Amino acid sequence: MKNKNVVTIGGGTGSFALLSGLKKYPVNISAIVSMADDGGSTGILRDELGVLPPGDVRQCLVALSESSKELRELMNYRFEKGGLKGHSFGNLFLSALEKINGSFSKGVEEASKILNVKGEVIPVTCQDIKLYIGLKNGKIIEGEEKINHSFEIEKIGIDKIYLYPEARANKKAVQKILEADLIIIGPGNYYCSIVPNLLVKGMGAAIIKSKAKVVYNCNLVNKKGHTEKFYLEDYVDLINGYIGKERIDAVVFNNRKPDARLVKKYQEKKEMLVEIRDFNEEEKKYKIIETNVLSRNTPRYSKADTLAKCRAFIRHDSDKLAKVLMKIIKN
Amino acid sequence: MKNKNVVTIGGGTGSFALLSGLKKYPVNISAIVSMADDGGSTGILRDELGVLPPGDVRQCLVALSESSKELRELMNYRFEKGGLKGHSFGNLFLSALEKINGSFSKGVEEASKILNVKGEVIPVTCQDIKLYIGLKNGKIIEGEEKINHSFEIEKIGIDKIYLYPEARANKKAVQKILEADLIIIGPGNYYCSIVPNLLVKGMGAAIIKSKAKVVYNCNLVNKKGHTEKFYLEDYVDLINGYIGKERIDAVVFNNRKPDARLVKKYQEKKEMLVEIRDFNEEEKKYKIIETNVLSRNTPRYSKADTLAKCRAFIRHDSDKLAKVLMKIIKN
Repeated sequence: MKNKNVVTIGGGTGSFALLSGLKKYPVNISAIVSMADDGGSTGILRDELGVLPPGDVRQCLVALSESSKELRELMNYRFEKGGLKGHSFGNLFLSALEKINGSFSKGVEEASKILNVKGEVIPVTCQDIKLYIGLKNGKIIEGEEKINHSFEIEKIGIDKIYLYPEARANKKAVQKILEADLIIIGPGNYYCSIVPNLLVKGMGAAIIKSKAKVVYNCNLVNKKGHTEKFYLEDYVDLINGYIGKERIDAVVFNNRKPDARLVKKYQEKKEMLVEIRDFNEEEKKYKIIETNVLSRNTPRYSKADTLAKCRAFIRHDSDKLAKVLMKIIKN
Repeated sequence: MKNKNVVTIGGGTGSFALLSGLKKYPVNISAIVSMADDGGSTGILRDELGVLPPGDVRQCLVALSESSKELRELMNYRFEKGGLKGHSFGNLFLSALEKINGSFSKGVEEASKILNVKGEVIPVTCQDIKLYIGLKNGKIIEGEEKINHSFEIEKIGIDKIYLYPEARANKKAVQKILEADLIIIGPGNYYCSIVPNLLVKGMGAAIIKSKAKVVYNCNLVNKKGHTEKFYLEDYVDLINGYIGKERIDAVVFNNRKPDARLVKKYQEKKEMLVEIRDFNEEEKKYKIIETNVLSRNTPRYSKADTLAKCRAFIRHDSDKLAKVLMKIIKN
């Protein structure tokens, strides 16, 4: 039997967790990645070298890499001092390859060979774009980094969210979506990793046209100032809205309660667990798969493994998540 | 028949040329590399990150790498803008691996695996050292970079040349020298790549003790302000002096005249071709192998290949040089 085609849509640590689990299964993985990041090491490289944002792509490449642990660790290493401080080695790697190869896409292809990547990592667009949010009070927040750290978005309300310049979807991304058996959206930072993919022109149309099942991995925790008041239904409705049709077939929802002390810590920061508003499934056009996809491992802290440092304490378990998704693809 | 053990001693572009040729033969190569570099990208990394100098080691690793052209090109790529300007990607690669692995030697080992290196690249010492020249007028020139760009060294005369702190030889370097069938010194910048290896404590003693033939690849051109008045015999005598015994068995000397226009260009910069002072071989303890080891290729200029840019126009041909040396090892 032919391997199934799986497309993931996201970016950042959510995609890292998802892909680390998925790669253990015999499926063809295409990881479509947001290109709106403009913070930290990535932001500096965009500004100074005029490259496209390497950060999210790097995390996906490392997740899908079948090379040595040492090489993967190297890619996530961050310099700690001097003019290089804060730069992720993997970001420099991708930026140098973009410069040598003359395009970000070719650089990513080259990086995939060097890192022995299973499947393919596909930038959602090859254009140099930025994410903007126009608030209802007329204020415009420019760039993902500022959006990520703004806590007034939900309170004031969003008038419009858009990429500028207007981005067209990478042809390869569209092609992979059309050929997909399963499209997986999330997990990931809602406004900063998920939505920037769906704002790219052609993405929604491709998802609508595709015959694939569409699964949304619902976030575990609402983000302060962004999605504080969201229920599962709100995430789904808004994502369907960005797609342009009620296209989500199933939602993976974690039903395992995290450690009570951890939950309290999150609550103190105004980050509450996502809940289901209405348990009446019959009224929904999608199935809710309630299951345990919670990681019980405390993140490892190593000098090199800065990804772990960035990952939340309440987070998805790569293997549990992949197992649930593989069940969906079989049915 | 067991492969012969070949040890090269040098650093920089001279070693790059030599090793690029040698690696095509079935010999066990150990490239011992100077650790005195403190200029450019290497100097910044030493200062800011406290790492050992990656530049010379990088060139040797790339020369001996059997990985893809693309990966080798990446290692020599230099960033052209912003805070990364001038940094060689390969230097950042080695510095990150040193940080992750906790020592430069382990970092080099890891790099060798990633780059699929034939043979071994061995830092001559694992200590953090600097090269100094004390002139006869009392002035001290600190660091290889300044020494390289000083044109008064020969005129004023050297009172002493030394490493500080005093460096002990890397045990592995000593071991490889003792096991060697052939030890190849140079080509390379005399005071900046050759001598800094021989100043390391234990190197001379090991070369004296080893049963290997010792060959010196004589420079093609005298360096302005450093070795302007040198004849072949002066190079040999001084190198024997640093070793502590008349240990050089043979000298490879280029007898093919470069293009006259090129020679004139060099002369205008006070860089004359090296000559033999006295052709009476019977008085010499070493054999002079006069042969054509001159490169006829104009250096290629590519955006990524900055090595080529640094290499001189009058330079050794990798393949011709290796061929001559392989003949020596057979006899």
